[in-house]
Amino acid sequence: MITSKDNPQLKAIRRLHDKRHRQREGLVVAEGEDLVEAAQAAGFEPEVLLVAGEDVEPRLLEAVSALGSGTRVIGVFRQRWSRPSGSLSVYLHAVRDPANVGAIVRAVHALADGPTVLGPGCADPWSPRAVRASMGSVFARPPARAEFEEVGRDARTTLGLVPHGADPLSALAADPPVVACLGSERSGLPNEVLEGCSALARIPLRAGGAESLNVAMAAAVALYELNRIVRDA
Amino acid sequence: MITSKDNPQLKAIRRLHDKRHRQREGLVVAEGEDLVEAAQAAGFEPEVLLVAGEDVEPRLLEAVSALGSGTRVIGVFRQRWSRPSGSLSVYLHAVRDPANVGAIVRAVHALADGPTVLGPGCADPWSPRAVRASMGSVFARPPARAEFEEVGRDARTTLGLVPHGADPLSALAADPPVVACLGSERSGLPNEVLEGCSALARIPLRAGGAESLNVAMAAAVALYELNRIVRDA
Repeated sequence: MITSKDNPQLKAIRRLHDKRHRQREGLVVAEGEDLVEAAQAAGFEPEVLLVAGEDVEPRLLEAVSALGSGTRVIGVFRQRWSRPSGSLSVYLHAVRDPANVGAIVRAVHALADGPTVLGPGCADPWSPRAVRASMGSVFARPPARAEFEEVGRDARTTLGLVPHGADPLSALAADPPVVACLGSERSGLPNEVLEGCSALARIPLRAGGAESLNVAMAAAVALYELNRIVRDA
Repeated sequence: MITSKDNPQLKAIRRLHDKRHRQREGLVVAEGEDLVEAAQAAGFEPEVLLVAGEDVEPRLLEAVSALGSGTRVIGVFRQRWSRPSGSLSVYLHAVRDPANVGAIVRAVHALADGPTVLGPGCADPWSPRAVRASMGSVFARPPARAEFEEVGRDARTTLGLVPHGADPLSALAADPPVVACLGSERSGLPNEVLEGCSALARIPLRAGGAESLNVAMAAAVALYELNRIVRDA
Protein backbone atom coordinates (compact mmCIF):
# COMPACT_ATOMS: atom_id res chain seq x y z
CA MET A 1 0.00 0.00 0.00
CA ILE A 2 1.42 3.37 -1.08
CA THR A 3 1.25 5.79 1.85
CA SER A 4 3.53 8.62 0.70
CA LYS A 5 2.95 11.23 -1.96
CA ASP A 6 6.65 10.92 -2.78
CA ASN A 7 6.16 7.38 -4.05
CA PRO A 8 7.88 7.05 -7.46
CA GLN A 9 4.75 5.70 -9.21
CA LEU A 10 2.66 8.65 -8.02
CA LYS A 11 5.40 11.06 -9.05
CA ALA A 12 5.51 9.43 -12.48
CA ILE A 13 1.73 9.86 -12.87
CA ARG A 14 1.94 13.52 -11.86
CA ARG A 15 4.67 14.11 -14.43
CA LEU A 16 2.38 12.68 -17.14
CA HIS A 17 0.03 15.66 -16.69
CA ASP A 18 2.64 17.56 -18.65
CA LYS A 19 2.15 17.22 -22.41
CA ARG A 20 5.82 17.21 -23.35
CA HIS A 21 6.62 14.58 -20.76
CA ARG A 22 3.63 12.48 -21.90
CA GLN A 23 4.80 12.66 -25.50
CA ARG A 24 8.40 11.84 -24.63
CA GLU A 25 7.35 8.81 -22.57
CA GLY A 26 4.60 7.73 -25.00
CA LEU A 27 2.28 7.02 -22.08
CA VAL A 28 -1.31 7.89 -21.19
CA VAL A 29 -3.09 8.05 -17.83
CA ALA A 30 -6.63 6.65 -17.71
CA GLU A 31 -8.58 7.91 -14.70
CA GLY A 32 -11.62 6.08 -13.40
CA GLU A 33 -13.00 2.58 -13.83
CA ASP A 34 -14.77 3.25 -17.12
CA LEU A 35 -11.65 4.48 -18.92
CA VAL A 36 -9.35 1.85 -17.41
CA GLU A 37 -11.82 -0.84 -18.47
CA ALA A 38 -12.09 0.65 -21.96
CA ALA A 39 -8.29 0.53 -22.30
CA GLN A 40 -8.11 -3.07 -21.11
CA ALA A 41 -11.06 -4.11 -23.31
CA ALA A 42 -9.10 -2.71 -26.26
CA GLY A 43 -6.10 -4.86 -25.34
CA PHE A 44 -3.95 -2.25 -23.62
CA GLU A 45 -1.87 -3.75 -20.80
CA PRO A 46 -1.42 -1.40 -17.83
CA GLU A 47 2.15 -0.35 -17.06
CA VAL A 48 0.81 0.81 -13.69
CA LEU A 49 -2.61 0.09 -12.15
CA LEU A 50 -3.50 1.68 -8.82
CA VAL A 51 -6.75 1.01 -6.97
CA ALA A 52 -7.67 3.29 -4.07
CA GLY A 53 -7.68 1.46 -0.76
CA GLU A 54 -5.88 -1.57 -2.21
CA ASP A 55 -2.66 -0.25 -3.75
CA VAL A 56 -2.69 3.33 -2.54
CA GLU A 57 -4.32 5.51 0.08
CA PRO A 58 -7.46 7.04 -1.50
CA ARG A 59 -6.44 10.64 -0.71
CA LEU A 60 -3.10 10.11 -2.46
CA LEU A 61 -4.72 8.72 -5.60
CA GLU A 62 -7.18 11.59 -5.59
CA ALA A 63 -4.25 14.00 -5.31
CA VAL A 64 -2.58 12.78 -8.52
CA SER A 65 -5.82 12.85 -10.53
CA ALA A 66 -5.85 15.51 -13.24
CA LEU A 67 -9.64 15.47 -13.40
CA GLY A 68 -10.55 15.13 -9.72
CA SER A 69 -13.99 14.13 -8.49
CA GLY A 70 -13.22 10.99 -6.53
CA THR A 71 -11.08 8.89 -8.84
CA ARG A 72 -10.80 5.35 -7.41
CA VAL A 73 -8.65 3.75 -10.13
CA ILE A 74 -5.82 5.07 -12.27
CA GLY A 75 -4.07 3.12 -15.00
CA VAL A 76 -1.01 4.08 -17.01
CA PHE A 77 -0.85 2.64 -20.53
CA ARG A 78 1.44 2.91 -23.51
CA GLN A 79 0.00 5.11 -26.30
CA ARG A 80 -0.85 3.47 -29.61
CA TRP A 81 -1.22 5.26 -32.91
CA SER A 82 -2.85 4.00 -36.08
CA ARG A 83 -2.18 4.82 -39.69
CA PRO A 84 -4.71 6.66 -41.88
CA SER A 85 -7.08 3.98 -43.16
CA GLY A 86 -10.72 3.01 -43.65
CA SER A 87 -13.46 3.91 -46.10
CA LEU A 88 -14.48 6.88 -43.94
CA SER A 89 -12.22 8.87 -41.62
CA VAL A 90 -11.58 12.39 -40.38
CA TYR A 91 -8.57 14.70 -40.75
CA LEU A 92 -8.25 17.57 -38.26
CA HIS A 93 -6.11 20.65 -38.76
CA ALA A 94 -5.23 22.82 -35.73
CA VAL A 95 -8.15 21.70 -33.59
CA ARG A 96 -6.63 22.83 -30.31
CA ASP A 97 -9.33 22.07 -27.75
CA PRO A 98 -8.70 18.66 -26.16
CA ALA A 99 -12.40 18.18 -25.34
CA ASN A 100 -13.26 18.68 -29.02
CA VAL A 101 -10.52 16.30 -30.15
CA GLY A 102 -11.74 13.69 -27.67
CA ALA A 103 -15.37 14.11 -28.69
CA ILE A 104 -14.39 13.74 -32.36
CA VAL A 105 -12.41 10.57 -31.60
CA ARG A 106 -15.59 9.21 -30.01
CA ALA A 107 -17.80 10.26 -32.95
CA VAL A 108 -15.37 8.77 -35.48
CA HIS A 109 -15.41 5.51 -33.54
CA ALA A 110 -19.22 5.56 -33.59
CA LEU A 111 -19.80 6.68 -37.18
CA ALA A 112 -16.74 5.73 -39.26
CA ASP A 113 -14.41 2.79 -39.82
CA GLY A 114 -11.13 4.71 -40.02
CA PRO A 115 -9.30 6.74 -37.39
CA THR A 116 -9.21 10.39 -36.45
CA VAL A 117 -6.13 11.72 -38.22
CA LEU A 118 -4.45 14.60 -36.40
CA GLY A 119 -2.66 17.12 -38.55
CA PRO A 120 -0.44 19.98 -37.36
CA GLY A 121 -1.50 22.01 -34.32
CA CYS A 122 -4.07 19.62 -32.85
CA ALA A 123 -4.50 18.99 -29.13
CA ASP A 124 -2.87 15.87 -27.72
CA PRO A 125 -5.55 13.10 -27.85
CA TRP A 126 -3.86 11.41 -24.86
CA SER A 127 -4.36 14.37 -22.51
CA PRO A 128 -6.67 13.72 -19.53
CA ARG A 129 -9.46 15.91 -20.94
CA ALA A 130 -9.28 14.40 -24.43
CA VAL A 131 -9.21 10.84 -23.08
CA ARG A 132 -12.24 11.55 -20.91
CA ALA A 133 -14.16 13.26 -23.74
CA SER A 134 -13.42 10.26 -25.97
CA MET A 135 -15.18 8.02 -23.40
CA GLY A 136 -12.57 5.37 -24.07
CA SER A 137 -12.76 5.51 -27.87
CA VAL A 138 -9.17 6.76 -27.96
CA PHE A 139 -8.19 3.22 -26.88
CA ALA A 140 -10.67 1.36 -29.09
CA ARG A 141 -9.82 3.42 -32.20
CA PRO A 142 -6.41 5.01 -31.66
CA PRO A 143 -5.88 8.23 -33.61
CA ALA A 144 -3.31 8.70 -36.35
CA ARG A 145 -0.85 11.53 -36.95
CA ALA A 146 -0.23 12.64 -40.51
CA GLU A 147 0.18 15.61 -42.78
CA PHE A 148 -2.68 16.33 -45.18
CA GLU A 149 -0.55 15.27 -48.15
CA GLU A 150 -0.27 11.75 -46.79
CA VAL A 151 -4.00 11.51 -46.14
CA GLY A 152 -4.79 12.79 -49.60
CA ARG A 153 -2.58 10.24 -51.35
CA ASP A 154 -4.66 7.25 -50.28
CA ALA A 155 -8.17 8.78 -50.37
CA ARG A 156 -10.46 8.93 -53.40
CA THR A 157 -12.34 11.85 -51.81
CA THR A 158 -10.83 14.47 -49.53
CA LEU A 159 -13.76 16.59 -48.45
CA GLY A 160 -13.07 20.01 -46.94
CA LEU A 161 -15.85 21.27 -44.66
CA VAL A 162 -16.26 25.02 -45.08
CA PRO A 163 -18.76 27.49 -43.61
CA HIS A 164 -19.76 29.22 -46.87
CA GLY A 165 -19.31 29.18 -50.59
CA ALA A 166 -19.77 25.49 -51.35
CA ASP A 167 -22.62 23.10 -52.03
CA PRO A 168 -24.49 21.55 -49.13
CA LEU A 169 -23.09 18.27 -47.94
CA SER A 170 -26.22 16.39 -49.04
CA ALA A 171 -25.57 17.31 -52.70
CA LEU A 172 -22.18 15.62 -52.60
CA ALA A 173 -21.21 12.48 -54.48
CA ALA A 174 -18.22 10.91 -52.79
CA ASP A 175 -16.34 7.76 -53.74
CA PRO A 176 -14.70 6.01 -50.82
CA PRO A 177 -12.22 6.11 -49.23
CA VAL A 178 -13.53 9.47 -47.99
CA VAL A 179 -11.65 11.71 -45.57
CA ALA A 180 -13.67 14.57 -44.04
CA CYS A 181 -11.31 17.47 -43.28
CA LEU A 182 -12.08 20.04 -40.58
CA GLY A 183 -10.08 23.01 -39.35
CA SER A 184 -10.10 25.18 -36.25
CA GLU A 185 -13.27 27.08 -35.39
CA ARG A 186 -11.56 30.44 -35.65
CA SER A 187 -9.64 30.05 -38.88
CA GLY A 188 -11.05 27.00 -40.65
CA LEU A 189 -8.85 24.94 -42.96
CA PRO A 190 -5.67 26.61 -44.26
CA ASN A 191 -5.40 27.35 -47.97
CA GLU A 192 -2.94 24.57 -48.69
CA VAL A 193 -5.49 22.02 -47.40
CA LEU A 194 -8.46 23.65 -49.14
CA GLU A 195 -6.57 23.63 -52.43
CA GLY A 196 -5.65 19.99 -51.98
CA CYS A 197 -9.20 18.83 -51.23
CA SER A 198 -11.02 17.02 -54.03
CA ALA A 199 -14.36 18.50 -52.91
CA LEU A 200 -15.69 21.20 -50.60
CA ALA A 201 -19.06 21.22 -48.86
CA ARG A 202 -20.93 23.05 -46.13
CA ILE A 203 -23.44 22.05 -43.49
CA PRO A 204 -26.53 24.18 -44.26
CA LEU A 205 -27.44 26.42 -41.33
CA ARG A 206 -30.55 28.56 -40.82
CA ALA A 207 -30.32 32.13 -42.03
CA GLY A 208 -29.92 34.58 -39.14
CA GLY A 209 -28.88 31.91 -36.66
CA ALA A 210 -25.50 30.95 -35.27
CA GLU A 211 -22.80 31.33 -37.88
CA SER A 212 -21.21 27.98 -37.24
CA LEU A 213 -21.37 24.74 -35.30
CA ASN A 214 -18.82 23.62 -32.76
CA VAL A 215 -16.15 21.68 -34.68
CA ALA A 216 -16.99 18.40 -32.93
CA MET A 217 -20.67 18.76 -33.80
CA ALA A 218 -19.79 19.63 -37.39
CA ALA A 219 -17.67 16.47 -37.56
CA ALA A 220 -20.55 14.35 -36.24
CA VAL A 221 -23.02 15.83 -38.72
CA ALA A 222 -20.58 15.35 -41.60
CA LEU A 223 -19.93 11.72 -40.67
CA TYR A 224 -23.66 11.04 -40.32
CA GLU A 225 -24.32 12.42 -43.81
CA LEU A 226 -21.23 10.79 -45.33
CA ASN A 227 -22.40 7.39 -44.12
CA ARG A 228 -25.45 7.83 -46.31
CA ILE A 229 -23.47 9.19 -49.26
CA VAL A 230 -20.82 6.45 -49.16
CA ARG A 231 -23.52 3.77 -48.80
CA ASP A 232 -25.36 5.13 -51.83
CA ALA A 233 -22.18 5.59 -53.90
CA MET B 1 -11.03 53.35 -12.12
CA ILE B 2 -11.64 50.45 -9.71
CA THR B 3 -8.46 49.76 -7.78
CA SER B 4 -9.67 47.55 -4.93
CA LYS B 5 -10.80 43.94 -5.03
CA ASP B 6 -13.38 44.90 -2.39
CA ASN B 7 -15.22 47.11 -4.87
CA PRO B 8 -18.94 46.28 -4.68
CA GLN B 9 -19.28 45.66 -8.45
CA LEU B 10 -16.41 43.16 -8.41
CA LYS B 11 -17.87 41.46 -5.34
CA ALA B 12 -21.24 41.25 -7.10
CA ILE B 13 -19.60 39.60 -10.15
CA ARG B 14 -17.78 37.09 -7.93
CA ARG B 15 -21.07 36.18 -6.22
CA LEU B 16 -22.61 35.43 -9.64
CA HIS B 17 -20.20 32.48 -10.03
CA ASP B 18 -22.55 30.73 -7.61
CA LYS B 19 -25.48 29.11 -9.36
CA ARG B 20 -28.05 29.77 -6.66
CA HIS B 21 -27.08 33.40 -6.41
CA ARG B 22 -27.17 33.74 -10.21
CA GLN B 23 -30.65 32.25 -10.33
CA ARG B 24 -31.93 34.40 -7.48
CA GLU B 25 -30.63 37.56 -9.10
CA GLY B 26 -31.60 36.52 -12.64
CA LEU B 27 -28.27 37.80 -13.95
CA VAL B 28 -25.55 36.44 -16.22
CA VAL B 29 -21.88 37.36 -16.55
CA ALA B 30 -20.47 37.55 -20.08
CA GLU B 31 -16.68 37.32 -20.13
CA GLY B 32 -14.67 38.57 -23.07
CA GLU B 33 -15.37 40.86 -25.99
CA ASP B 34 -17.02 38.25 -28.18
CA LEU B 35 -19.67 37.30 -25.62
CA VAL B 36 -20.30 40.88 -24.49
CA GLU B 37 -20.76 41.89 -28.13
CA ALA B 38 -23.08 38.94 -28.75
CA ALA B 39 -25.23 40.00 -25.79
CA GLN B 40 -25.38 43.60 -26.96
CA ALA B 41 -26.07 42.57 -30.56
CA ALA B 42 -29.06 40.61 -29.24
CA GLY B 43 -30.38 43.71 -27.49
CA PHE B 44 -29.24 42.98 -23.95
CA GLU B 45 -28.37 46.17 -22.03
CA PRO B 46 -25.47 45.74 -19.62
CA GLU B 47 -26.23 46.28 -15.95
CA VAL B 48 -22.47 46.48 -15.44
CA LEU B 49 -19.76 46.79 -18.07
CA LEU B 50 -16.12 46.77 -17.02
CA VAL B 51 -13.21 47.23 -19.43
CA ALA B 52 -9.72 46.45 -18.18
CA GLY B 53 -7.52 49.54 -18.00
CA GLU B 54 -10.50 51.88 -18.42
CA ASP B 55 -12.92 51.02 -15.62
CA VAL B 56 -10.87 48.60 -13.59
CA GLU B 57 -7.28 47.53 -13.07
CA PRO B 58 -6.60 44.61 -15.43
CA ARG B 59 -5.39 42.27 -12.65
CA LEU B 60 -8.61 42.87 -10.69
CA LEU B 61 -10.82 42.07 -13.68
CA GLU B 62 -8.78 38.97 -14.37
CA ALA B 63 -9.26 37.94 -10.73
CA VAL B 64 -13.07 37.95 -10.95
CA SER B 65 -13.11 36.00 -14.21
CA ALA B 66 -14.57 32.50 -13.84
CA LEU B 67 -12.88 31.34 -17.04
CA GLY B 68 -9.51 33.06 -16.79
CA SER B 69 -7.13 33.48 -19.72
CA GLY B 70 -6.80 37.23 -19.94
CA THR B 71 -10.35 38.54 -19.88
CA ARG B 72 -10.34 42.22 -20.88
CA VAL B 73 -14.09 42.92 -20.69
CA ILE B 74 -16.84 41.66 -18.41
CA GLY B 75 -20.52 42.51 -18.77
CA VAL B 76 -23.38 41.67 -16.44
CA PHE B 77 -26.76 41.26 -18.11
CA ARG B 78 -30.26 40.31 -17.02
CA GLN B 79 -31.22 36.76 -18.07
CA ARG B 80 -34.01 36.31 -20.60
CA TRP B 81 -36.02 33.16 -21.10
CA SER B 82 -38.22 32.26 -24.03
CA ARG B 83 -41.28 30.06 -24.22
CA PRO B 84 -41.32 26.75 -26.14
CA SER B 85 -42.01 27.68 -29.78
CA GLY B 86 -40.94 27.19 -33.38
CA SER B 87 -41.36 24.48 -36.00
CA LEU B 88 -38.22 22.73 -34.75
CA SER B 89 -36.81 22.83 -31.22
CA VAL B 90 -35.06 20.67 -28.63
CA TYR B 91 -36.14 19.46 -25.20
CA LEU B 92 -33.39 18.34 -22.79
CA HIS B 93 -33.95 16.19 -19.73
CA ALA B 94 -31.26 16.06 -17.02
CA VAL B 95 -28.39 17.13 -19.29
CA ARG B 96 -26.11 18.17 -16.45
CA ASP B 97 -22.90 19.21 -18.23
CA PRO B 98 -22.89 22.98 -18.83
CA ALA B 99 -20.57 22.67 -21.84
CA ASN B 100 -23.04 20.27 -23.48
CA VAL B 101 -25.99 22.54 -22.69
CA GLY B 102 -24.13 25.52 -24.14
CA ALA B 103 -23.08 23.61 -27.26
CA ILE B 104 -26.68 22.49 -27.79
CA VAL B 105 -27.95 26.06 -27.41
CA ARG B 106 -25.50 27.00 -30.18
CA ALA B 107 -26.55 24.11 -32.43
CA VAL B 108 -30.24 24.87 -31.93
CA HIS B 109 -29.59 28.49 -32.87
CA ALA B 110 -27.77 27.29 -36.00
CA LEU B 111 -30.12 24.51 -37.10
CA ALA B 112 -33.60 25.22 -35.67
CA ASP B 113 -36.04 28.09 -35.32
CA GLY B 114 -37.24 27.35 -31.77
CA PRO B 115 -35.37 27.46 -28.48
CA THR B 116 -33.54 24.88 -26.38
CA VAL B 117 -36.11 23.85 -23.78
CA LEU B 118 -34.58 22.81 -20.47
CA GLY B 119 -36.50 20.23 -18.48
CA PRO B 120 -35.74 19.08 -14.93
CA GLY B 121 -32.14 18.49 -13.88
CA CYS B 122 -30.38 20.41 -16.66
CA ALA B 123 -27.30 22.55 -16.14
CA ASP B 124 -27.82 26.30 -15.84
CA PRO B 125 -27.45 27.74 -19.37
CA TRP B 126 -26.30 31.04 -17.82
CA SER B 127 -23.25 29.54 -16.10
CA PRO B 128 -19.89 30.80 -17.36
CA ARG B 129 -19.03 27.49 -19.07
CA ALA B 130 -22.43 27.18 -20.74
CA VAL B 131 -22.40 30.79 -21.94
CA ARG B 132 -18.94 30.33 -23.41
CA ALA B 133 -19.84 27.01 -25.08
CA SER B 134 -22.91 28.68 -26.60
CA MET B 135 -20.59 31.22 -28.30
CA GLY B 136 -23.19 33.87 -27.59
CA SER B 137 -26.20 31.93 -28.89
CA VAL B 138 -27.64 31.91 -25.37
CA PHE B 139 -28.27 35.63 -25.89
CA ALA B 140 -29.42 35.43 -29.51
CA ARG B 141 -31.81 32.51 -28.83
CA PRO B 142 -32.54 32.44 -25.09
CA PRO B 143 -33.47 29.00 -23.76
CA ALA B 144 -36.84 28.07 -22.29
CA ARG B 145 -37.68 26.15 -19.13
CA ALA B 146 -40.60 23.75 -19.22
CA GLU B 147 -41.78 20.33 -18.19
CA PHE B 148 -42.17 17.77 -20.96
CA GLU B 149 -45.97 17.88 -20.66
CA GLU B 150 -46.01 21.53 -21.64
CA VAL B 151 -43.73 20.93 -24.63
CA GLY B 152 -45.84 18.00 -25.75
CA ARG B 153 -49.10 19.97 -25.70
CA ASP B 154 -48.09 22.34 -28.47
CA ALA B 155 -46.02 20.00 -30.67
CA ARG B 156 -47.36 17.77 -33.44
CA THR B 157 -44.28 15.52 -33.12
CA THR B 158 -42.36 14.86 -29.93
CA LEU B 159 -39.42 12.73 -31.02
CA GLY B 160 -37.51 10.82 -28.36
CA LEU B 161 -33.90 10.03 -29.33
CA VAL B 162 -32.96 6.57 -28.02
CA PRO B 163 -29.81 4.46 -28.45
CA HIS B 164 -31.50 1.20 -29.49
CA GLY B 165 -34.82 -0.40 -30.32
CA ALA B 166 -36.28 2.21 -32.67
CA ASP B 167 -36.16 3.01 -36.37
CA PRO B 168 -33.32 5.11 -37.71
CA LEU B 169 -33.97 8.83 -37.75
CA SER B 170 -33.92 8.95 -41.56
CA ALA B 171 -36.99 6.66 -41.72
CA LEU B 172 -39.06 9.13 -39.71
CA ALA B 173 -41.99 11.14 -40.98
CA ALA B 174 -42.51 14.12 -38.73
CA ASP B 175 -45.14 16.83 -38.96
CA PRO B 176 -44.04 20.16 -37.51
CA PRO B 177 -43.90 21.55 -34.90
CA VAL B 178 -41.26 18.95 -34.03
CA VAL B 179 -39.50 18.78 -30.66
CA ALA B 180 -36.43 16.52 -30.50
CA CYS B 181 -36.09 15.15 -26.95
CA LEU B 182 -32.73 14.07 -25.51
CA GLY B 183 -31.83 12.75 -22.08
CA SER B 184 -28.64 12.41 -20.09
CA GLU B 185 -25.83 10.31 -21.55
CA ARG B 186 -25.87 7.88 -18.64
CA SER B 187 -29.60 7.25 -18.25
CA GLY B 188 -31.25 8.55 -21.41
CA LEU B 189 -34.82 9.81 -21.29
CA PRO B 190 -36.94 8.76 -18.31
CA ASN B 191 -39.91 6.47 -18.91
CA GLU B 192 -42.50 9.18 -18.43
CA VAL B 193 -40.97 11.16 -21.30
CA LEU B 194 -40.47 8.10 -23.54
CA GLU B 195 -44.11 7.12 -23.03
CA GLY B 196 -45.27 10.64 -23.82
CA CYS B 197 -43.27 10.93 -27.07
CA SER B 198 -45.22 10.57 -30.30
CA ALA B 199 -42.23 8.88 -32.01
CA LEU B 200 -38.90 7.33 -31.11
CA ALA B 201 -35.83 7.14 -33.33
CA ARG B 202 -32.14 6.34 -33.13
CA ILE B 203 -29.04 7.66 -34.84
CA PRO B 204 -27.54 4.63 -36.63
CA LEU B 205 -24.02 3.88 -35.42
CA ARG B 206 -21.46 1.45 -36.81
CA ALA B 207 -21.54 -2.05 -35.32
CA GLY B 208 -18.66 -2.61 -32.91
CA GLY B 209 -17.88 1.08 -32.54
CA ALA B 210 -18.65 3.53 -29.75
CA GLU B 211 -22.00 2.77 -28.16
CA SER B 212 -23.23 6.34 -28.24
CA LEU B 213 -22.50 9.89 -29.28
CA ASN B 214 -21.96 12.77 -26.91
CA VAL B 215 -25.42 14.28 -26.24
CA ALA B 216 -24.53 17.57 -27.90
CA MET B 217 -23.36 15.79 -31.03
CA ALA B 218 -26.49 13.64 -31.05
CA ALA B 219 -28.58 16.81 -30.85
CA ALA B 220 -26.73 18.35 -33.80
CA VAL B 221 -27.14 15.22 -35.94
CA ALA B 222 -30.84 14.99 -35.05
CA LEU B 223 -31.45 18.64 -35.93
CA TYR B 224 -29.56 18.26 -39.20
CA GLU B 225 -31.71 15.29 -40.21
CA LEU B 226 -34.94 16.84 -38.91
CA ASN B 227 -34.37 19.89 -41.09
CA ARG B 228 -34.56 17.60 -44.10
CA ILE B 229 -37.56 15.67 -42.74
CA VAL B 230 -39.56 18.75 -41.82
CA ARG B 231 -38.75 20.36 -45.18
CA ASP B 232 -39.96 17.27 -47.02
CA ALA B 233 -43.09 16.82 -44.83
